[in-house]
Order: sequence, then C-alpha cells, then structure tokens
Amino acid sequence: MDLELKDIPAKEIIPGFHGKMIHTPKSTIAYWEVEAGAEIPEHSHYHEQIMQVTEGEFELTVDGKKRVYGPGTVVYLEPHIKHGGKALTPCKITDIFCPPREEYQ
Amino acid sequence: MDLELKDIPAKEIIPGFHGKMIHTPKSTIAYWEVEAGAEIPEHSHYHEQIMQVTEGEFELTVDGKKRVYGPGTVVYLEPHIKHGGKALTPCKITDIFCPPREEYQ
Repeated sequence: MDLELKDIPAKEIIPGFHGKMIHTPKSTIAYWEVEAGAEIPEHSHYHEQIMQVTEGEFELTVDGKKRVYGPGTVVYLEPHIKHGGKALTPCKITDIFCPPREEYQ
Repeated sequence: MDLELKDIPAKEIIPGFHGKMIHTPKSTIAYWEVEAGAEIPEHSHYHEQIMQVTEGEFELTVDGKKRVYGPGTVVYLEPHIKHGGKALTPCKITDIFCPPREEYQ
C-alpha cells in the first residue's frame, strides 16, 4: 500500500506539534513539524518510541536528564519511561511507536 | 538510549545494500545506502515492513506490480507479501520492521 505524505493531513496534536500519522497494524509513524518554542510536557506511555530529529534542535528530557538533539542521533525510549521536551528551533521529528498509538488515530 | 548513526557500522547484507541497523525489543530500523543497479530478489517475511526511499529512485515490485519510488511516498508491506526491487540510481532507504529482523542482528 502506497501512502503519499503530501496527501496526509497534519493534525496539531498538542499546540505547535503538527503530525502526519501513518498507522499500520503493528506501529504508528509520526512525521512532526514542530514550531520553535513548542513544548510537550513530561509524559509516558506503554509503547516503545524511536525518535529522530531530522531538522532543527529539540531539547528532550528523559527520566530527568536533558539533552539537545539534532540530526544524526536516534533515541530509543523504552515503554513507560518519562519524557518531554521543547523545540529550540523549528524542528522536523520522526517518531516510530510500537504498538500503534490508538489515541492518534 | 542514544544511538549515533555515525558510530553504527554498515553491514552489506546483500551485494550493494549497505545497512545500519537499530534493533529494539519490538522493531528493527534499517538505514540503507544502496548502490545503483543493486538488486534484491523477490522474497517475503512475516514482519510488517514500512519502506521509505529518502534519496534516489528505487524500482520496487510488490505482488507482481512494479513502481518506481522516490522521496515523499511511504510503502506499507504487509506480512508475507512478495517484494523485491532494484536501485535505478544510488538510493537511501529507511525500512522499519516489526517485529525485529533477528537475522540482521
């Protein structure tokens, strides 16, 4: 099945986070465009999450530790770990969740 | 857990397909650099696969149907579907497999 990214509408899931979502039976891929300054509060979920900042700089706090991420690093977030963060610049971020994020559907 | 892509060695899994692999408990992400002309014969596996050609042009045959893919399209390959293909140019491809591809570890 082919999915054209240009045809997937972006949803503003939280203020400043605009995500194009692909849901499969086993996973969700989220392609985010994040506005500079947008913040996601600390939270956790039972899904594993693999995050990649493909453009810009994003300050992520994982289990209380802060680090600024940009292209070239892949972050593995294990299920239930606390995480949150803030876009220091406009960012593009790709997240892979397994299993699917049903609340994003 | 942070993974620096520059520090992950690429494995030539089949001739011309050089992949940097990230394995998590639930998935495998493969970042491929593919040489022009390299081919992967038709095959299938029980994992779901989400494929994205991020640079170049790759001719993919899925269930007997050919299409040339480039940036902007995401391909969902359901478990057990027959697929194979050929790099028409040098390509970069990202594959997400769920569950993990144990034979790539």
